[in-house]
Amino acid sequence: MTKPIRAAIAGVHGYVPDYILTNAELEKMVNTTDEWITTRTGIKERHILKGENQGSSVMGIEAVRGLLEKTHTDPHDIDLLICATITPDMPTPATGNIIAHAVGAVNAFSYDLQAACSGFVYAMVTGAQFIETGKCRKVVVVGVDKMSSMVDYEDRTTCILFGDGAGAVLLTPNEAGQGIMDSVLGGDGAGEEHLHQKVGGSRRPPSHATIDAKAHYLYQNGQVVFKIAVSKMAEIVEEIMQRNHLSSDDIAFIVPHQANQRILSVVAQRAGVSMDKVMINIDKFGNTTAATIPLCLWQYESQLKPGDRLILTAFGGGFTWGGAYVIWSQ
Amino acid sequence: MTKPIRAAIAGVHGYVPDYILTNAELEKMVNTTDEWITTRTGIKERHILKGENQGSSVMGIEAVRGLLEKTHTDPHDIDLLICATITPDMPTPATGNIIAHAVGAVNAFSYDLQAACSGFVYAMVTGAQFIETGKCRKVVVVGVDKMSSMVDYEDRTTCILFGDGAGAVLLTPNEAGQGIMDSVLGGDGAGEEHLHQKVGGSRRPPSHATIDAKAHYLYQNGQVVFKIAVSKMAEIVEEIMQRNHLSSDDIAFIVPHQANQRILSVVAQRAGVSMDKVMINIDKFGNTTAATIPLCLWQYESQLKPGDRLILTAFGGGFTWGGAYVIWSQ
Repeated sequence: MTKPIRAAIAGVHGYVPDYILTNAELEKMVNTTDEWITTRTGIKERHILKGENQGSSVMGIEAVRGLLEKTHTDPHDIDLLICATITPDMPTPATGNIIAHAVGAVNAFSYDLQAACSGFVYAMVTGAQFIETGKCRKVVVVGVDKMSSMVDYEDRTTCILFGDGAGAVLLTPNEAGQGIMDSVLGGDGAGEEHLHQKVGGSRRPPSHATIDAKAHYLYQNGQVVFKIAVSKMAEIVEEIMQRNHLSSDDIAFIVPHQANQRILSVVAQRAGVSMDKVMINIDKFGNTTAATIPLCLWQYESQLKPGDRLILTAFGGGFTWGGAYVIWSQ
Repeated sequence: MTKPIRAAIAGVHGYVPDYILTNAELEKMVNTTDEWITTRTGIKERHILKGENQGSSVMGIEAVRGLLEKTHTDPHDIDLLICATITPDMPTPATGNIIAHAVGAVNAFSYDLQAACSGFVYAMVTGAQFIETGKCRKVVVVGVDKMSSMVDYEDRTTCILFGDGAGAVLLTPNEAGQGIMDSVLGGDGAGEEHLHQKVGGSRRPPSHATIDAKAHYLYQNGQVVFKIAVSKMAEIVEEIMQRNHLSSDDIAFIVPHQANQRILSVVAQRAGVSMDKVMINIDKFGNTTAATIPLCLWQYESQLKPGDRLILTAFGGGFTWGGAYVIWSQ
């Protein structure tokens, strides 16, 4: 019996903008301290995309262009590009269309997928289905968010948390038993009240009144989200380990969405792995929403070898959550 | 050899809001006439979702709830809900999350997919991949747009075209050789300049200046979009017919995105089918973006019988385009 076709990660690349917003700078903007931010979140700095008319696509294009160069992929060979984002350049066209056009992926169809901080995992699993059915052979999944476009830099509870960035992976067919082996995806729309933007869509389109009310910024009930995120992200890892008969020794790395350093510690503890087996970039990048996981993979790429077992886990707005079991193939 | 598992449309339902905006009413709002609108577009009226704080989810919930009742589907059995929309309730959480929660699909993961007028076809083909791989058994795909939330009712070139509505299908596995047999999906991000919203995302977040500039409304270069839409939508049908060895006699219905009556006529002509084999609801609903195709299927449902061959074809913002060959299974 031949092994089934799986989608393997054939390459990863990332991009963060040059400007670094440090805790020291935030101390001057809102009533906070480096010590408070570091202790509560683990974040020391985050990258911010500055300049007029700079949307998420600017970063997505850099990440995907770098990915195609690095993997020696002809842009004409891309069949599908999925862009996971909650900060598209504009409501329409899709930021994925803009990115595909800029990198010369003229034979690709492309779209945006919106599932907040779980967006990258959702998009990667979605891309994998197209590979597994044979409908596509080369799929680019890019997670990108310009969180600075929806963050209120007068609100000290949220502005310290988020950063801008993009990360992209290339998915290709693998018949050697590597790639995306399993996934767990779920959601609970009751989470809307705890994490949302009030305005900026069809329910309440923008108006002078909504601008004055600062209603376009991200609202988060941090305590509630934190608690559920901890337990869901840990549960996902446990479920994937159980289903795939993996012990903690089998795991090369846990690749968690980067929302809070303290969440990462609990996830590691409950999975029985030491912190050096947890990919972390929150200290440098903050929470980049759909970009955290591919940015982690990019940063840790040199430490990965074929056969390494990774467990991805994410939780975010929706609520949405998702995880995946990946055997590294490069 | 067993037949492959395909995703079949196991049910369809639609919803349009009560309020009807007629050409006569538009005559009072902008410098236009019923005769001009009818001749150029085929549109006589469109439904509009009125009231405060009414987002796309209001309509999506009605369509999906009706679908589940009609198909006697336990909401707990839904594995995945994809919401195709360019007018989500808000940027985050996903409107799909809100709909899934409202209908009690507690075991589903859900997300939004953004590909403008091709959104429903893209989402349906995406949902089909999850069925074909066996990852999901029941997938709801809902196309919904509240176009009235992004249309400038002082711009006579666009406000006459669009309406609000929602349509949903249930996808289930089929091993009897029916369902979604083939699809053609493509795009060209160069289309951005001809069809877009300037503001309302990360490139240019909302501000008092953007409100004053009326930059949150949909911009369309109608002539350019019309020309490309005609040829692409016709090409898709021809390509699907060729690839699947279908003659015009084999086709029960063409199910086109409803952007303009004149496009529908050309598509029919080039496919060699008479207009009574083209599903049309543009006269009653206008262009409801991601909802046009499922609303067509819903309206023509009583005329469909198992084995009927349908060709879906769509074109829209991005540019994006897509088509599918479906053998009706109900």
